[in-house]
Amino acid sequence: MGMENQAKAAIRRDDFIALLDEHMPQVRQGGLSVRAMERGLCTMVATPQPDMVRAGGTLSGPTMFALADVALYGAVLSMIGPEPLAVTSNMTITFLRKPPIRPLVAEARILKLGRKLAYGEVLIHSEGEGEEAGELVAHATGNYAIPSTLSAEKEKMERA
Amino acid sequence: MGMENQAKAAIRRDDFIALLDEHMPQVRQGGLSVRAMERGLCTMVATPQPDMVRAGGTLSGPTMFALADVALYGAVLSMIGPEPLAVTSNMTITFLRKPPIRPLVAEARILKLGRKLAYGEVLIHSEGEGEEAGELVAHATGNYAIPSTLSAEKEKMERA
Amino acid sequence: MGMENQAKAAIRRDDFIALLDEHMPQVRQGGLSVRAMERGLCTMVATPQPDMVRAGGTLSGPTMFALADVALYGAVLSMIGPEPLAVTSNMTITFLRKPPIRPLVAEARILKLGRKLAYGEVLIHSEGEGEEAGELVAHATGNYAIPSTLSAEKEKMERA
Amino acid sequence: MGMENQAKAAIRRDDFIALLDEHMPQVRQGGLSVRAMERGLCTMVATPQPDMVRAGGTLSGPTMFALADVALYGAVLSMIGPEPLAVTSNMTITFLRKPPIRPLVAEARILKLGRKLAYGEVLIHSEGEGEEAGELVAHATGNYAIPSTLSAEKEKMERA
Repeated sequence: MGMENQAKAAIRRDDFIALLDEHMPQVRQGGLSVRAMERGLCTMVATPQPDMVRAGGTLSGPTMFALADVALYGAVLSMIGPEPLAVTSNMTITFLRKPPIRPLVAEARILKLGRKLAYGEVLIHSEGEGEEAGELVAHATGNYAIPSTLSAEKEKMERA
Repeated sequence: MGMENQAKAAIRRDDFIALLDEHMPQVRQGGLSVRAMERGLCTMVATPQPDMVRAGGTLSGPTMFALADVALYGAVLSMIGPEPLAVTSNMTITFLRKPPIRPLVAEARILKLGRKLAYGEVLIHSEGEGEEAGELVAHATGNYAIPSTLSAEKEKMERA
Repeated sequence: MGMENQAKAAIRRDDFIALLDEHMPQVRQGGLSVRAMERGLCTMVATPQPDMVRAGGTLSGPTMFALADVALYGAVLSMIGPEPLAVTSNMTITFLRKPPIRPLVAEARILKLGRKLAYGEVLIHSEGEGEEAGELVAHATGNYAIPSTLSAEKEKMERA
Repeated sequence: MGMENQAKAAIRRDDFIALLDEHMPQVRQGGLSVRAMERGLCTMVATPQPDMVRAGGTLSGPTMFALADVALYGAVLSMIGPEPLAVTSNMTITFLRKPPIRPLVAEARILKLGRKLAYGEVLIHSEGEGEEAGELVAHATGNYAIPSTLSAEKEKMERA
């Protein structure tokens, strides 16, 4: 599904990590890490921290949102290249089961790259459980707004 | 992805068609048809009708919503069996490109079957274009509420 | 709440009706009518038709989606003027109770008018029941994409 | 709009603060505070912290999500009473403008209290700017799942 293919990602994993550390240092300091990037795909992991835990011995909704949001950001950059100013336009997240206090894995993929918006989905499951097993913990979909300087350049190129 | 598997669907395609014709005759009269059902999956098609067309030579958003909604309903019933009273609790639909006036194919799959809610996603593309090609026309996600008589029975069985 | 004010709507109710009849004749033919327009606001009504009814003696989800979608479209046009090509970018609808078979009233209001997107919400209740009474039947939020010719003009004006 | 009224909130502001500190200490430690509670309404404030800031001199999306999520939780508890195990079922958040690095105010209100789900919306604006001024920074809607022990009790009472 989606736009993933064998083409090279527009940003390498190491460069995405450097961009995060420069512009959003809280991401990695907060326990989120970048596992893999391909064109149109980004996998990130949340390693449980005390501030992620909530009542009932589970991980909080905002933790899963933050993980989904940055994984989708990585997937967007894997297609448009390094762009600190791409921002979430909207996001819908559905919580499917309470995860145990174990690492969470988020797999984001782009379903549509437009001129102004990039749309994708994120599947979140607990480490060691596959999405195949129907064990999704959360599912998110959302749009990132692509900065207009970038989209203006793309448009000029398309029209040239 | 999801909960689809080789197990038999809890309702056969013919019985789903009969249920629609009895309880929601407008579905098939309005140009929507059931192409395929498996456990956790339902594929439906919208054949363009005059009232689906809108400005710009494209198919309307409400047409795509109606198609996504009933395809997800089919996918829910493929897991819980015939249940006229299952109703949509919420749905988010994102329109990704304006489709030409050609049949639309919606593929719904259940991502989580809970006791009270079933959650799934629907991918819509124009007939003859694959989702593989990155040519999605719309993407929807949503919850169906499972009637509590049914969920009460399920619960009793689970506890027994 | 929102951007509504005493300023004149950018399209009059009669002109919105004419635009619908020209570009989306199915709207009014299908039982939806325009009750009121102000700047940033549009009220529409769905008068029950046989094809709106579904199992359980209630009105269908797609009927409520279609009503919310066109009411939000009216609210967008009340701010940007007649624009047949504005299209829904995404919409989230939550169904709160099963409505009886009575007219449904949808009140749409714009919460943010941007250059590329207009965002708003729609409250739906049964005719004769107020939103004040906590009797909402459905609630929707969504974005409309503003055609870029229009947004390019707006941008030029803003920069001039 | 909604179900707010003069009736007493089912949890007092002080008791909600104590519940947060016991079950989700990260909320207040992270810079979020409870400003006001009424029945069906909860106002919370995010005071900027270093880990809330992101590229472009603005506050991050996950900060706004976390604020919206806990404000809606407060609004739910204002109707059902102290309930540590109520959890977000789904949430849609739309980011409307990049906020400056100033306190953010979130106003949550319940639009529907059902037996299993409570649905509401959250309006977020920068401190000192009113929602009246059309200056919303973000808007969220979502469902909280009400624990079934509680809903079973409510049901028994309703049937008695």
